[in-house]
Amino acid sequence: MDKQTVQRIRDAIDRRFDEQVDFLSEISSHASTRGAEQSAQRFMRDQLQERGYQTDMWEIDVDEISSLPGFSPVIGNYDEALNLVATHRGGTGGGRSLILNGHIDVVPEGPLDMWHRPPYEPWCEDGWMYGRGTGDMKAGLVANLFALDGLREAGYQPAASLYFQSVVEEECTGNGALACLQRGYQADAALIPEPFDEKLVTAQVGIIWMQVYLRGTPVHAMQTSSGVNAIEAAIPLIAALRRLEKDWNAGDKHPRFEHVDHPLNLNIGRIQGGDWASSVPAWCCFDVRMGIYPGQDIEAAGRKLEECILDASQEDPYLRKNPPQITYHGFRAEGYSLADHDKPEAHEARQVLERAHHAVTGDELQAMPITATTDARFFGLYADTPALVYGPRAESIHGFNERVDLESTRRVTHSIALFVADWCGLEKINRK
Amino acid sequence: MDKQTVQRIRDAIDRRFDEQVDFLSEISSHASTRGAEQSAQRFMRDQLQERGYQTDMWEIDVDEISSLPGFSPVIGNYDEALNLVATHRGGTGGGRSLILNGHIDVVPEGPLDMWHRPPYEPWCEDGWMYGRGTGDMKAGLVANLFALDGLREAGYQPAASLYFQSVVEEECTGNGALACLQRGYQADAALIPEPFDEKLVTAQVGIIWMQVYLRGTPVHAMQTSSGVNAIEAAIPLIAALRRLEKDWNAGDKHPRFEHVDHPLNLNIGRIQGGDWASSVPAWCCFDVRMGIYPGQDIEAAGRKLEECILDASQEDPYLRKNPPQITYHGFRAEGYSLADHDKPEAHEARQVLERAHHAVTGDELQAMPITATTDARFFGLYADTPALVYGPRAESIHGFNERVDLESTRRVTHSIALFVADWCGLEKINRK
Repeated sequence: MDKQTVQRIRDAIDRRFDEQVDFLSEISSHASTRGAEQSAQRFMRDQLQERGYQTDMWEIDVDEISSLPGFSPVIGNYDEALNLVATHRGGTGGGRSLILNGHIDVVPEGPLDMWHRPPYEPWCEDGWMYGRGTGDMKAGLVANLFALDGLREAGYQPAASLYFQSVVEEECTGNGALACLQRGYQADAALIPEPFDEKLVTAQVGIIWMQVYLRGTPVHAMQTSSGVNAIEAAIPLIAALRRLEKDWNAGDKHPRFEHVDHPLNLNIGRIQGGDWASSVPAWCCFDVRMGIYPGQDIEAAGRKLEECILDASQEDPYLRKNPPQITYHGFRAEGYSLADHDKPEAHEARQVLERAHHAVTGDELQAMPITATTDARFFGLYADTPALVYGPRAESIHGFNERVDLESTRRVTHSIALFVADWCGLEKINRK
Repeated sequence: MDKQTVQRIRDAIDRRFDEQVDFLSEISSHASTRGAEQSAQRFMRDQLQERGYQTDMWEIDVDEISSLPGFSPVIGNYDEALNLVATHRGGTGGGRSLILNGHIDVVPEGPLDMWHRPPYEPWCEDGWMYGRGTGDMKAGLVANLFALDGLREAGYQPAASLYFQSVVEEECTGNGALACLQRGYQADAALIPEPFDEKLVTAQVGIIWMQVYLRGTPVHAMQTSSGVNAIEAAIPLIAALRRLEKDWNAGDKHPRFEHVDHPLNLNIGRIQGGDWASSVPAWCCFDVRMGIYPGQDIEAAGRKLEECILDASQEDPYLRKNPPQITYHGFRAEGYSLADHDKPEAHEARQVLERAHHAVTGDELQAMPITATTDARFFGLYADTPALVYGPRAESIHGFNERVDLESTRRVTHSIALFVADWCGLEKINRK
């Protein structure tokens, strides 16, 4: 690509950047937590249609995906779980096809009083945009769209098929990305601008979610000694899981995570138990999230977690007879390592991104393994499609006052546009 | 009272006992948990009006009671928190006046699958009636009513003023009983048939409820080590409270609790924390219930509990800077000891009940201290009215498959009727 074309594309993106920031603010004002993504998806669909894309919005049908590899147990139901894909068909069909993927769902905002301002009224300050989902990952999702807009404004379009995906369920199962695969959306590579500081994610862990439900013997609080407090019975089980986490991290590390201090993170993310201060609680339920390495057998890992919990229960006379119920709900996500993806396209795609990143920033593209999961695993593991995760700098994702760096978002938008141009090839748009 | 009169009264109660059981079943089918007592209260009011009582049903006004001794911080709001009092005026006015008190509110039923049958569809088996609230304390409340019915059916009415009270809020604050006092309902003694196995409660502990709210530092679960898990931060605080409970029980016992193995019970009755399995929880909140002795200063006890929690927080580098918030909600209940109530009426009332109990059962009335609270404290402490707690045998109150012994309920109904007859005196009803 000649320097002039690059410059024309980059200028077009810069010209529209204020509009891009407004768009990000608008879409971040939709509180698109799990089950509530509809208005954000409809807004996105309308925007895509205005731009002339052919759009496909559909409700995920669990029956169609539940037997596929990578499927995770559903939480709640999928009424109105809307996935959205816009398709661009290259006129000449000469280039390599591409999926630009992003997720529309955000994690819950938590207690409002811990936010400086309301989480769904995005605000800008010192070059950052704040708000739930701004970083994770609406800035990336919008960057995908405005990268394509930039190409168009410069008079170009991708010379190959390109699928713009806005999916649900990334934060709990990945079943949104899986449903896109099942519906037939496949390409030569995928790019997901998750907010990892303009670095390329070369490996990601797998994630298991499970829910542990304990019973107690409820009595009036006046006779606490004759009851079994289900809340306090949970404490040694949590301690046992922490020991297991320590063991796993002390063991041999996956080569891609050799320099990561603590690759496999346990989180006790939620707890609920009991109904009344003066009744010994009859039940307690807590949510476990645990990381595993790429290539680690997820069934075996799940069994080890279960064993850990059940072994700890043996120490408790009541739990020994009334073992906790363990259910899987949400992530059963395998790890994925782009760096080990044994396919020429994986190497090529990475090189193309390296060039784009260098052209925009002047720096080498840094690579990093992450201790989280992304939807990249679906493309990489189940469709043999190299999946690059590369997005803007953000802070406090899943936390309070989540924020994304707007200049970083701008740079990433440039890089994505140049990546698309290079990977798919460009063709002039015939303006009539 | 001559033997014939006694027999006539007791026969009348027996004749109507099937109806009494039906009434108990009917009122126990109302799920009168906190905030949902209205239908049960309206049913009770209609029943009282049918019997010709003058009834007074009113919504508790927090402003009218909040500055009174014994008031406990309100949970939720008091819209439609309906108290009910029916008044009987003795024609001659010669006897001693009496309050027959009971509470209509029940504690939450907990997970339904732990009940053999639905908790608000009472069922009878082997002489027990099962269902939430049957024991605690609708059987006693209904016994009060049918004891009066028995007297009437035998041709008598109390010769003094008698107030039949059906109150709310016993299970969390006692503000229902307090509101009755504030409204002017006072008498020479009170009887509350709480389900304590046909024994007389001679002392009851005080109860403090508090809620402990912890903050964490929420981050994405991929960086758990940089966040502070508010759920796990709560664990050492709970452990510290257990140590304090141990210390308090190891110390000098209140004389009335000398033979009680473990008088002061701590309960961690409820916990909630976190919003998402893959977010380090930003918050956790747990409910504490702790017993104190009669005469123990409740302010000082509360401060000791607070100190215990805050001292334990000092051990945690994050909590040291972000100490938990402690709020009082619900019980701030002082202990009460009928046995130490220094007033002739206290001794007399006890003797009258001893006679009634002996006449019905042939046994001596046993006395017991209890490690719970009842509304007796309001009458005893704040109106200098001896308050007798004496009711039927029940099991699994606050638990699953709560049940009350029907023959015990019958005996208690007899005893209450004879107590009323003896305490208030009887006068013949003039049947026109």
